[in-house]
Amino acid sequence: MKIESVDFFYLSMPEVHDIGDGSQDACLVRVRAGGVTGWGECEAAPLPSIAAFVCPMSHSACKPVQASVLGQPIDDVADIQRIGDLVRDQSLDLLQADHTLSGIDMALWDLLGKRLNEPAYRLLGYKAAYPKMPYSSMLFGGTPSETYEKGCRARGNGFRAAKFGWGQIGLGSVEADVEQFRAAREGLGEDGTLLVDIGTVWRDDIDAASERVKALQDVRATWLEEPFVSGALEAYKQLSLRTGPVKLAGGEGCHNFYMARQMIDYAGIGYVQIDAGRIGGISVAKRVADYAHTRGVTYVNHTFTSHLQLSASLQPFAGLEDDVIAEYPVEPKCLATDLTTNHIELDKDGFIHLPAAPGLGMTVNVARLKNYLVDAEIRFKGQVIYRTPDLD
Amino acid sequence: MKIESVDFFYLSMPEVHDIGDGSQDACLVRVRAGGVTGWGECEAAPLPSIAAFVCPMSHSACKPVQASVLGQPIDDVADIQRIGDLVRDQSLDLLQADHTLSGIDMALWDLLGKRLNEPAYRLLGYKAAYPKMPYSSMLFGGTPSETYEKGCRARGNGFRAAKFGWGQIGLGSVEADVEQFRAAREGLGEDGTLLVDIGTVWRDDIDAASERVKALQDVRATWLEEPFVSGALEAYKQLSLRTGPVKLAGGEGCHNFYMARQMIDYAGIGYVQIDAGRIGGISVAKRVADYAHTRGVTYVNHTFTSHLQLSASLQPFAGLEDDVIAEYPVEPKCLATDLTTNHIELDKDGFIHLPAAPGLGMTVNVARLKNYLVDAEIRFKGQVIYRTPDLD
Repeated sequence: MKIESVDFFYLSMPEVHDIGDGSQDACLVRVRAGGVTGWGECEAAPLPSIAAFVCPMSHSACKPVQASVLGQPIDDVADIQRIGDLVRDQSLDLLQADHTLSGIDMALWDLLGKRLNEPAYRLLGYKAAYPKMPYSSMLFGGTPSETYEKGCRARGNGFRAAKFGWGQIGLGSVEADVEQFRAAREGLGEDGTLLVDIGTVWRDDIDAASERVKALQDVRATWLEEPFVSGALEAYKQLSLRTGPVKLAGGEGCHNFYMARQMIDYAGIGYVQIDAGRIGGISVAKRVADYAHTRGVTYVNHTFTSHLQLSASLQPFAGLEDDVIAEYPVEPKCLATDLTTNHIELDKDGFIHLPAAPGLGMTVNVARLKNYLVDAEIRFKGQVIYRTPDLD
Repeated sequence: MKIESVDFFYLSMPEVHDIGDGSQDACLVRVRAGGVTGWGECEAAPLPSIAAFVCPMSHSACKPVQASVLGQPIDDVADIQRIGDLVRDQSLDLLQADHTLSGIDMALWDLLGKRLNEPAYRLLGYKAAYPKMPYSSMLFGGTPSETYEKGCRARGNGFRAAKFGWGQIGLGSVEADVEQFRAAREGLGEDGTLLVDIGTVWRDDIDAASERVKALQDVRATWLEEPFVSGALEAYKQLSLRTGPVKLAGGEGCHNFYMARQMIDYAGIGYVQIDAGRIGGISVAKRVADYAHTRGVTYVNHTFTSHLQLSASLQPFAGLEDDVIAEYPVEPKCLATDLTTNHIELDKDGFIHLPAAPGLGMTVNVARLKNYLVDAEIRFKGQVIYRTPDLD
């Protein structure tokens, strides 16, 4: 069969606030071929991602993503790999292309799984999908007592693990951060897995990070996430020599295989966190999972939006039994919740399981999403080259 | 003074062909503050770059570039650095932002130079701009005899150095490539500086590269450029151990300081090639030049479009006397030539000199560019958020 259509949908909450919550909008992708529909989602600014799909060619290595996708044969797994390679070659100089490709790649795995009646993780070569231990992924509270309450609530909601991040952490005094770390540990309880996310605010300032290391050791944090921007490999490496049992985690900003490989090779991280909605989709994420496995680095998904994204981001390491920690967004906006009719829920032991249904196993809630669909249009030389398509 | 306006202009040849020629369109940026106008140019797909400037906010780390630029104070060099940092923080998750920022950053150096009556390289801390030895940057001919003729022509036009790249090189047989290399050397003459550019077609295939090493040594190539994609550091490193006097060159795909630093730290390159129109502008490029200098790696500009771009890309290493090789586009489309009224010409000894005029020292040919200006428009929720501005 051939790819007949690729449609992008810009979904948004009525208002988007200036907070670290990535579930306020969504860039949904629908791919159709041979009577089958696949869905994916770019974890990306929708308008630039759409523009990267439809823009005019600038030169032979700066083509719109659609030039490498529309009309392509899609019959087996090798086709997905081939299409991704084609996008990377023909859109080499189009920076946003990796984000655009990510949602398309997900949709192709969904589509092919439905066509072949297999869940995506089986097509990826895994015999089974092992249970994952989700962590409740949350922002730090405005005060330590709010953070404490959030920790308690995570346990009350059945989570064995919780991650606190962003907000004011890392930006104020060391003492203020130490109080937040302690509050998180107290709220979560002594036996919970505690994860801390700095959100890159120290950029590459090793001293700012080092000042917080002892406190993180004292509260037995499992990892310290994104102390620095993704590329600051030497800063990561230096810090990793000082953190002892607290491992470094990072990688969500990686938008291709090589960036992730570099973090594994040079940054001294213990956990590589991959957003399948940014790195080029499930295909590239799986390649990272394979590589991390050979290098003794644990793979973790990075996900803070819908359960379509969640399913897609769990597929690449579904069959790695020991890589058990998984990110699970717990404070999504209703847009993210409404994106699918089914959801990946915690079982009574605090674990999650990928659906065994074909493809990504999620059903997009088309009727509900019409409430969030926004009109967007791009014109070039007087011609409409993009207009929000019908969602049906 | 404050930044009053930032305008993006999409310029294009009437037809854009599927060839490795990046001068077929342009993304020109105009910044105004305090009655002064600065100009810059993104080396990027125009529409996604414009979308990254005007798109709605997705969350606190995925804001449009304009949120960090419009209204900002711009009185001294520190302001340019601060604005760049703000863009990188507030548009962390907007992949295209680095390309969009690049043109703005150039325009800010142009603007501030005009305001302070200093050429940009002086504001960057260099006392003088040393002459550079430009190489004629060309595509390989379709046949070895065409390549030979191009080499002859480069010498006839006064160039001491020439780079051949793209076309079919690296994609066919080793023998075919060897013939091309020899033809290039013969055309250029024994004393010319010969550079070879593979254009990443081997991705990370060390064997494909190694098979051509002896021929490159035989023709005394000064460098082998982009045998692999920018991120394939380990492949670069392995190859660098086999090439002897032929040094590796790469880095044009870097879109932030860290990517360039990683190539310098881990890839074994002898030359780091930075496109100021991609890496985040003159500011980031200068930071790379400083770092390369401390690590014994030679800095080279990557430029294949207008002389506005050429001036901007020469500023970051203008004061490094020993880093003498410079890329110089010789086959630009008339759009690129018409972009400025003045041009950076070769002197009788085959060297080029940065203009001593304030800012970037180039005058944009507004009247001529109107012939190339294309209408583009982006609408969101029924509102026009971008429409091609007047060019005057």
